[in-house]
Formats: sequence, C-alpha cells, structure tokens
Amino acid sequence: MNILFLGSGNVATHVALAIHKTEHRIVQVYSRKKVSAAALGNRLGVPYTHLVEEIMQDADLYIYAVSDDALTSLVSLNIAPQAMHVHTAGSVAMDIFKGYKKHYGVLYPLQSLSKDKAIDFQGVPLLLEASDEVVKQALDALAKEISGQVYHYNTEQRLKIHLAAVFANNFVNHLFHIASDIMESSDVDFNLLKPLIKETVEKISHLSPAEAQTGPAKRNDQKIMKQHLEMLKDQPKLQSLYRELSQMILEQYLHQS
Amino acid sequence: MNILFLGSGNVATHVALAIHKTEHRIVQVYSRKKVSAAALGNRLGVPYTHLVEEIMQDADLYIYAVSDDALTSLVSLNIAPQAMHVHTAGSVAMDIFKGYKKHYGVLYPLQSLSKDKAIDFQGVPLLLEASDEVVKQALDALAKEISGQVYHYNTEQRLKIHLAAVFANNFVNHLFHIASDIMESSDVDFNLLKPLIKETVEKISHLSPAEAQTGPAKRNDQKIMKQHLEMLKDQPKLQSLYRELSQMILEQYLHQS
Repeated sequence: MNILFLGSGNVATHVALAIHKTEHRIVQVYSRKKVSAAALGNRLGVPYTHLVEEIMQDADLYIYAVSDDALTSLVSLNIAPQAMHVHTAGSVAMDIFKGYKKHYGVLYPLQSLSKDKAIDFQGVPLLLEASDEVVKQALDALAKEISGQVYHYNTEQRLKIHLAAVFANNFVNHLFHIASDIMESSDVDFNLLKPLIKETVEKISHLSPAEAQTGPAKRNDQKIMKQHLEMLKDQPKLQSLYRELSQMILEQYLHQS
Repeated sequence: MNILFLGSGNVATHVALAIHKTEHRIVQVYSRKKVSAAALGNRLGVPYTHLVEEIMQDADLYIYAVSDDALTSLVSLNIAPQAMHVHTAGSVAMDIFKGYKKHYGVLYPLQSLSKDKAIDFQGVPLLLEASDEVVKQALDALAKEISGQVYHYNTEQRLKIHLAAVFANNFVNHLFHIASDIMESSDVDFNLLKPLIKETVEKISHLSPAEAQTGPAKRNDQKIMKQHLEMLKDQPKLQSLYRELSQMILEQYLHQS
C-alpha cells in the first residue's frame, strides 16, 4: 500500500518508523508545522509538506496521528474520499470519518510513546476498528506486520480502555510523583522505592490487582492511617487523596470478606 | 550471633530465611499462634514456641516482626533487657523500645513480601536505625550479609519513606484494580494494559516522575477529561478520584510551565 501520514508527533513517528520497515511505502508526511513535517520526512527519507493543499490525493491509506482538534478539521477536508482513512486516537470515535470518507477505521497503539525513546513495536498492542470488511482486512494485515499484538475492539470498548489507561499510566505516574516528593522532603533518594515499585508491577503478572492488594487500608489499620493523615496535615490535597484512596480500598476489602 | 525471631508472618519468614543462610544461628521462633510458630520453626528446622514465658533469654539479638499492636505488648515484657532488640516496622518509631531495653534498633525491609513468593533478598533495601554504636555495627554487618542495599535512616525519615511506599505500592495497586474493573466492564482482558504498565515503570528508571508525566490532565485536554468524567457518571467515587488526580496534575503542570 501507499501510505500517507498526517501528523509528526510521538505516535506518528513510531507508527511510521514501524511501517517504514515493511514492504509498504510511505509516500508523504504532512504536518502543519513545517519543521516537524521536515523532521519526520527526513527521518524516513520521504516527501513532506506543511500545506494541506499539497497533500497527495492518490495514497491508498491515510493515517491521522494528530491532536483531536486537528483531526476534526483534517477529516472534513476533501482529501481522497474513496481511499482508506484511519486515526490513531484512543479517545475518538471511529465515526468521526462518517459522511466524509467511504472506508475508514482506527489503529490505536495502546502504549506510552516518546519520540526520542526507542521501543520494540512488536510488543505494542494495536487496537483496530474498521467501517467495513475491506478496511478490516487491510488494517489487520498491516497491523500484524508491525506488531505481535493485534486486537479488534469497537469504539465503546476502545474509549473504556483509554480511560483505564489513564488510571494505570497517567495517574499511577502521578502517584510516583507524590511518593518522590514525600521522599525528597525528607532528603531520601526516590530510587530507594524502585525495587518496591518493580515488585508492585511484577505481582500483578500472576495475581489480579484485587488479590495483590496490601497495606494499612487493606487490613483496616486505623492507627497507621491516622498517623499518615497526621503527617499530611500541611498538604490538604494529599491528605484528602490519601483518605479517599484508603476509603475505597477499605470498602473493597470489607465488601470482599 | 544467636538470633531469636518474634513473629511468623511475611516479613519474619523472609528475613529469617535470609539470615538462615548466613553463619548466624536462629535459636528460636516465637509466634502467639501455635501453628504459625510451628510452620516457620519447621521450615527453618529450629525450636519454636507460642508461649511468651518459653521465649529464650540468652539470645544476642531479638527481631520483632509482628503487628504494631503485638509489638507494643511484646516490648514491655521482661525479655533479655541487656540484649539487642530490633523491630522490622516501617511505621513504628525506634523509641518504642526506650525504657524497656538497653540496645535497640530497626531493620525495615522496604519491599512487599509474601510468604509464598520467593524473592531475591539481596535486592531488598534494608533501612536500619540504631540506639547506639554497638547496635549500629552489629545490625549493619548482619544486614550486609543478607542484602546488597543497606541504608541508615532515622525514625522521621523511615516514617516518610513508609508513607511514600503506601502511595507508590498500595495506592498504585488500587489504581490497577480500578483500571482492571473498567476493562472488565467492557469485556476487555486487563492483560491488554500490561505492556503500558510495564512502560510506565520503565520510564521512571531514566526520567523523574515529573518529567515522565503524560496524559489529558498534563496537556490540559478539557475535552477528553470531560468525556472521561461523563463515562464515570454512574460511579461518583471514581469520578471524584479522576477529577482530583487530574486537578493535581494540571496544577503541577501549570506551576511548572
């Protein structure tokens, strides 16, 4: 297939680099920022543009890896309405293409991708959705060439998965940030927690998170929870977060026992 | 040294197994539950008892790996007041021994330990505190025989580290639990998130959590946050947690930029 990329950010870069290694041909990169278009175009050694009117009309597959707002405006442009068009967003319905394109779908990489960090793309789960059998076959074949983990989910499921990912990735990282601040407030290196963090994740490889739960809230240790809340008395937001999470764990546990 | 263990739970088991491999001698295991005392005693092949009056008086070092409540009552018993006494709790001050014992300290393994899960004890950070130089030397030497990560911190620091650990371990696991529930409510296997979770932790091996932060709240994407809050409208507690964590990240980011 002749493939055209719209976007030049983290997702565009990693998906394009992965596809670049296959037999498929990336014919052009479009990005509204000239330097970004050039950066990815040059990295791939393919033509690029920052002008929508220069976007080639004869590609087989258009991959939109842009912000949600940019996606809305790009979709409505009159670009190759008979070709296949897919976006890469976890939180956008497939039907954003409806009425504008004939064949469309989604290819959502469920991974935290950074432009400057190499990743083994074979291990990145790709969540596909397709408007019809033609797109489904084409996307499935393409996805399986770049990843060993290819799945088909509908929009509702993908939106839920994206929401779950915010808890398991973005919010978890923020808890690491909080832990790091607490450590540093006592002149202790955050690295000290790394073995514990590693084990926290290793545990859920063979136990469900419900089974893996430990800690003061799980065993309803009021004395320690009171001590911790007292230690957080000068940080009301942290204190409230501690209380809220402990209460949720407590209720889960009481409910289970 | 002749060492006596009070306790037979997860921490007692792992510390005792690690010490068992050294030249030191475990002379007895005490646990208030007869079957638990027998289980650990037999596992180590050493004498055990569930009666406080049978606790040997002539050990060099007494290690208390018991619940905080049990610790309070055991400490006040008249057992070998001239020997060394250490507890293994992250959240209890060293001075709990003060007035009862002459030489005392803390040996706190900063790790989530489960009786039935083997762990490489060499990689478990051991946080030490000592009432005097005699205990400090003895504990340091013992700790370095069983772990490659030995540190000295005072009570205030250890309490903070323990609090940070609740965020980075217990609360993080609860977020995994929430993510798992969200996935399952849409008939999606939680395992799909594992590569993302693995990357979340890998990222903080070379970036600070502040640098590693991503997601809708970080980039102040009000549209997606609104969509997520709407998806959680039937779960007011989750909705409030989502709002609270997003707000904290948002403020962090605005503060930084």
